[in-house]
Amino acid sequence: MTRYALKIEYDGTPFCGWQRQSGQPSVQQALEEAIRRLEPDAPGIGAAGRTDTGVHATAQVAHCDLAKPWECFRLMEALNYHLKPLPVAVVAAAPVGADFHARFSAKGRRYLFRLVARRAPVTHDAGRVWQVRHDLALAPMQAAARHLIGLHDFTTFRSTMCQAASPVKTLDRLDIEARPYPHGTEFRFHLAARSFLHNQVRSIVGTLERVGAGAWAPDQVRDALEAADRAACGPVCPPQGLYLDGVTYEPDPFAV
Amino acid sequence: MTRYALKIEYDGTPFCGWQRQSGQPSVQQALEEAIRRLEPDAPGIGAAGRTDTGVHATAQVAHCDLAKPWECFRLMEALNYHLKPLPVAVVAAAPVGADFHARFSAKGRRYLFRLVARRAPVTHDAGRVWQVRHDLALAPMQAAARHLIGLHDFTTFRSTMCQAASPVKTLDRLDIEARPYPHGTEFRFHLAARSFLHNQVRSIVGTLERVGAGAWAPDQVRDALEAADRAACGPVCPPQGLYLDGVTYEPDPFAV
Repeated sequence: MTRYALKIEYDGTPFCGWQRQSGQPSVQQALEEAIRRLEPDAPGIGAAGRTDTGVHATAQVAHCDLAKPWECFRLMEALNYHLKPLPVAVVAAAPVGADFHARFSAKGRRYLFRLVARRAPVTHDAGRVWQVRHDLALAPMQAAARHLIGLHDFTTFRSTMCQAASPVKTLDRLDIEARPYPHGTEFRFHLAARSFLHNQVRSIVGTLERVGAGAWAPDQVRDALEAADRAACGPVCPPQGLYLDGVTYEPDPFAV
Repeated sequence: MTRYALKIEYDGTPFCGWQRQSGQPSVQQALEEAIRRLEPDAPGIGAAGRTDTGVHATAQVAHCDLAKPWECFRLMEALNYHLKPLPVAVVAAAPVGADFHARFSAKGRRYLFRLVARRAPVTHDAGRVWQVRHDLALAPMQAAARHLIGLHDFTTFRSTMCQAASPVKTLDRLDIEARPYPHGTEFRFHLAARSFLHNQVRSIVGTLERVGAGAWAPDQVRDALEAADRAACGPVCPPQGLYLDGVTYEPDPFAV
């Protein structure tokens, strides 16, 4: 038995999320079915992050155990062949030790959130960005974001369904960049932490959007954080702008 | 009666192209139906370029005649309201003279073609790029492209169905840029001309891809052009990487 780490890209639109749920298409199910076309008795797989319905990934990581020794390029090719025509692709594969666990070995996760501000509905990126139809100011969002960086009790910014043992997390990065978008502006939120709480990114981005729109002052975000009260959170934004953008391991199993 | 120019963005995936065809969804039909929600007796509309099935637009231009005087922002908003949930959006509207014709007044058209070279299937951009699974070399494609710029008989690079009076056209621009794409490279082809022949862009890009792959030498593209023979063309590439990217008028009706 050899364990392999797989780096996976997907469009979350047609899926109920990463995790298997009976009667609904999930990314995990799609990948497990592809793996079992290679080895019918292969065990189930685990992933670094359980993305929600409609959430995308550019670099999810999962591990799987295979009886046959596979050359990595061939394994990637074979899985992609069986994944067709679903919008899921294995973009890298690497052998790892038996103690590697995609979730528990992860030292950090990165998320990207794409928010487009423009009046006319987006067409090419429908389902891949969150669109608001009003202008947003970058500097107040950046000022508000600075309150959230570091070690905090993020109770305000986690789902009441969150099963994490503690709401105390360290947010290592929360950068926002503005870039031109046809007939509008795209705001890219880059977040990094060892781990995230359920709905943490969407709670943060939804709240910062209110700041960008002028409905909240930047300091209100600090007040909301300090309240450590879910009711103090701004609106949770929709999932379609969210991308699991990377998972860090030491050493990096995909390093060439 | 006032004539309006409309700048239109669309994802061509669900459409049989711009032009109305009985029993099939077209962008023209979608837009005419939205216009007739405003004015039931509005006449049909004309566009600058008749994009084919699956071809996209970032800036198609059409004109329409309306009895009621419309403030442009309100006209855009009303049309976008009625276009929902189709991936078609009016991104600008402007009143023009009665002699303005989206097709016949156009002084130039610009097309963008997005070609992604990577091994793993693309997921987020499926339907919006042409993917090849091998590497491509930029410099030979650029060398071959130089043979096509300027005034030529483009018989080799036009569909046998093309109804243009003459195959002689001036290609003003054919630039190719390479940019990073996750786990691959994206090649963007930028083309501009007063007008294009049917399938001209896809015939050119399909042939240049053969050069990038090393199957054709750059000079073979010059030979193919000089043959003025459709049989000398390389493979016509698929439509999903093609975008009508702009139409030029003098003066620009959308200039603020």
